[in-house]
Amino acid sequence: MIKVGYLGPAGTFTHDAALIFVKESKYELVEFSSIQELILAVAGGEVDKAVVPMENSMEGTVNLTVDMLIHEVDLYIVGELIIPIHHCLMAKSGMEIGDITKVLSHPQALAQCRKFLDGFMDGGKRQVTESTAAAAMLVMESRKPWAAIANHRAAEIYSLNVLKEGIQDNDDNSTRFVVLASNRVEKTGDDKTTLAFTVNHKPGGLYQALKIFADMDINLTKIESRPMRTLLGEYLFLVDLEGHEDEAGIGLALEQLRGQSRFFKILGSYPKIYP
Amino acid sequence: MIKVGYLGPAGTFTHDAALIFVKESKYELVEFSSIQELILAVAGGEVDKAVVPMENSMEGTVNLTVDMLIHEVDLYIVGELIIPIHHCLMAKSGMEIGDITKVLSHPQALAQCRKFLDGFMDGGKRQVTESTAAAAMLVMESRKPWAAIANHRAAEIYSLNVLKEGIQDNDDNSTRFVVLASNRVEKTGDDKTTLAFTVNHKPGGLYQALKIFADMDINLTKIESRPMRTLLGEYLFLVDLEGHEDEAGIGLALEQLRGQSRFFKILGSYPKIYP
Repeated sequence: MIKVGYLGPAGTFTHDAALIFVKESKYELVEFSSIQELILAVAGGEVDKAVVPMENSMEGTVNLTVDMLIHEVDLYIVGELIIPIHHCLMAKSGMEIGDITKVLSHPQALAQCRKFLDGFMDGGKRQVTESTAAAAMLVMESRKPWAAIANHRAAEIYSLNVLKEGIQDNDDNSTRFVVLASNRVEKTGDDKTTLAFTVNHKPGGLYQALKIFADMDINLTKIESRPMRTLLGEYLFLVDLEGHEDEAGIGLALEQLRGQSRFFKILGSYPKIYP
Repeated sequence: MIKVGYLGPAGTFTHDAALIFVKESKYELVEFSSIQELILAVAGGEVDKAVVPMENSMEGTVNLTVDMLIHEVDLYIVGELIIPIHHCLMAKSGMEIGDITKVLSHPQALAQCRKFLDGFMDGGKRQVTESTAAAAMLVMESRKPWAAIANHRAAEIYSLNVLKEGIQDNDDNSTRFVVLASNRVEKTGDDKTTLAFTVNHKPGGLYQALKIFADMDINLTKIESRPMRTLLGEYLFLVDLEGHEDEAGIGLALEQLRGQSRFFKILGSYPKIYP
């Protein structure tokens, strides 16, 4: 049985992502309570894979994921998942929206539903919780007419009634998760590669690095500069590009970039997902 | 009296940033409870300036600041502030670390002090609050032996005793705030410019845009790609560069880039801060 770690508790968006990943029955899900523990568990062989939030997550600091992959462990990204953020207002059965005296959720979920909440209650009647699932659990356990903002699965797990769905102010919110493992995956012909590298902090430094990709017709789908604590005067870039490191052109470009960077690390090549 | 809006409550890191900005007595601070309200208050002339978190903030979604500046208002960044994140453990006077039964704080502050907290209590004894200042207030109001994680100013405001300072796991954490106003500021000779623009999502698209800056010896200090909801096939980039838009070379480069971008917006030129 392949063990897949995820960031708990059950009923969060991260749990959703992990369940989508392990659709096949040969996987066993293992819950972790922090991103650090989860990533170290894959590195240490305690679990075979981990599903971790990478971008725009609600349930954890994503810088943490990226910083650990760059500086602390040697793991590979072997897949990605994109989960749309779809919030529901839920309460115990028999309760109507008009009965609700307080809404509980993770601070980012409350923020993402601000317009909806402003429509029927003032700011004082909101309470923050550690996760969206924790909000659902508290509502289930309480005798008060409270409601939680969480996803559909949380309503099922905690036997709550969905009063209204899709209450997020913005329908384009989604969270990107990556799957981590100790071994690389083969190319499928439609892959993406994530890498981190530094360039000299002077005019044209990044431009020279990107020239390598432009010359080889390699498309970048993401670029982000990040502070690099240990190398003064160097800037760290996190880049996603289309293609697998085993493709000839990509491999050549990466070797060229490696040759001119003081720090260079491929975080993984993995099948691309279309959001 | 110049009115400066900030994201409340008093005693947060955002409050610290606002107080540093308004050192001179001719300013009056006005508290707001959300980034949206705060930014709209400057746009509507209700306050003259606003201090808002821009990067790595603890007390609000920073995407919100950036998205509002790009899409919803026409304001200028007229200054920046960088505040190191320095957390303290605080409790009522007479209390020792050994007495503490629960630690309260904003989820990100709890996460930033995880190693310290793991050293003396298990995960079950933490409670999330809406802000670091709210945690300090709750500890002050409670009769229980609780502690809060917040900054020095919160300890002063809520009459708490600092049990231990600098309990963050990482000393390099800081939050960047920007000051917003309706009017641009003149160049000082040591400025930075923040802009947003789109490029075609094809190989070399970003490279062509950066060529303009490289050719003019303009140094970029930050670059980030962001999803652009409204223009399919286009990628939005957020860039910080060294120099003021009124400098001849910078102005020329920006005009050239504007000419080749479907979307282009200068968010402001403002005096540079050295962190």
